[in-house]
Amino acid sequence: MEEHPHLPHLQEELAALNERLLAMGGLAEDAVRLSIVGLAARDSAALTRVLTGDTQINQLHIDIDTRCFTLLALHHPLAADLRLVLAAVKINSELERVGDLAVNIAGAALRYIAAPPVKPLIDLPRMSELAQTMLRESLDAYVRRDVALAARVCERDDQLDELKTTVFRDTLVHMLADPTCIEAALQLVLISRHLERIGDHATNIAEDAIFMVSARDIRHQAPAAALEPGAPGR
Amino acid sequence: MEEHPHLPHLQEELAALNERLLAMGGLAEDAVRLSIVGLAARDSAALTRVLTGDTQINQLHIDIDTRCFTLLALHHPLAADLRLVLAAVKINSELERVGDLAVNIAGAALRYIAAPPVKPLIDLPRMSELAQTMLRESLDAYVRRDVALAARVCERDDQLDELKTTVFRDTLVHMLADPTCIEAALQLVLISRHLERIGDHATNIAEDAIFMVSARDIRHQAPAAALEPGAPGR
Repeated sequence: MEEHPHLPHLQEELAALNERLLAMGGLAEDAVRLSIVGLAARDSAALTRVLTGDTQINQLHIDIDTRCFTLLALHHPLAADLRLVLAAVKINSELERVGDLAVNIAGAALRYIAAPPVKPLIDLPRMSELAQTMLRESLDAYVRRDVALAARVCERDDQLDELKTTVFRDTLVHMLADPTCIEAALQLVLISRHLERIGDHATNIAEDAIFMVSARDIRHQAPAAALEPGAPGR
Repeated sequence: MEEHPHLPHLQEELAALNERLLAMGGLAEDAVRLSIVGLAARDSAALTRVLTGDTQINQLHIDIDTRCFTLLALHHPLAADLRLVLAAVKINSELERVGDLAVNIAGAALRYIAAPPVKPLIDLPRMSELAQTMLRESLDAYVRRDVALAARVCERDDQLDELKTTVFRDTLVHMLADPTCIEAALQLVLISRHLERIGDHATNIAEDAIFMVSARDIRHQAPAAALEPGAPGR
């Protein structure tokens, strides 16, 4: 299909799309970092900033969705380009959720710091760093089409699960020793679950990157064969 | 654009896509129901079925993704049809997560029933019914393009949040009264969070349905105007 002479080139549009996904990923990562730094520093101003600061992420979410739609409607990208746009649609949703989770962490952290500290926080900052790294690397893997990096992100998810289990056991010990700290300690368990989910979203992004790079290319099949009952893709 | 003579009609393909999304929604809803019924009945066989039974949902997830890709590559749907396919891509991800959450609930429920019951379960079954209804209605809203129904799903989410808060407070009372039940009671809190997230996914589906029906139709604009800097859609 010929392109409309007034249309910007597809490749430029795809590059602009990737730029915005990276910007959104950066904002989401910042929000996660700030929520855990605010928790560790018992800094309610920082936590309140996370609580109220997801407007920019939400605007990018809508902007990226609209760009994907426009790209598909006007350029009819095929094969690798089509997979890139579909991956962008999905990654966009993942990043928006990460932003929501940072807000959830900030909310739980504000409830946590309303009471005396339950224990020194060591594993939650570790979980946060790991989740942030996974997020950054999954987006790098997508932009650079780096399947090996994407696979490494998926492997890191086990480390995050182990840390989550450590937080659970450790917090339980404190709850049993001092029931007055149960309510605050529960917030730490919930925060660890939010961080675990951020890791899940990074894993999903990495999987989208792998699909984008390695999926079977239906453009190289005759349409009739591609749609035959029983053929892959049916 | 003329269609390839061997291609099935776009409308048939879209109908087949919706059928599969409904089937997947049904499976996801069944898994959620079974996980909570298994919890209430302390039925480890039922819970184990949920733990190991998400293969069908995962297969549908891949099948639906492949169909969306093929549809976009071969039919270049526009406007309302394109929005339908993009909504399907997103709803497919939401439903897969709901399946994962049912598995998470079943895992937590197995840990819960390994100890004596903490309390009669009233609010969790209520939360589950509400989440299942939201899921069913959000898919109905998508298939029937019913914006009013989709809006009602979004409103119900507040009820789910209230029930979650009730579960939290109620469980906390039991933990404080009897610290030996803390570990089991924690599982109930986590299950309530999983159910809350199922409601979030239903809300996302409802929002996708609303976008699909009510979004501005870029097909009725000249491409140059649609891509002018500052124009909506940029």
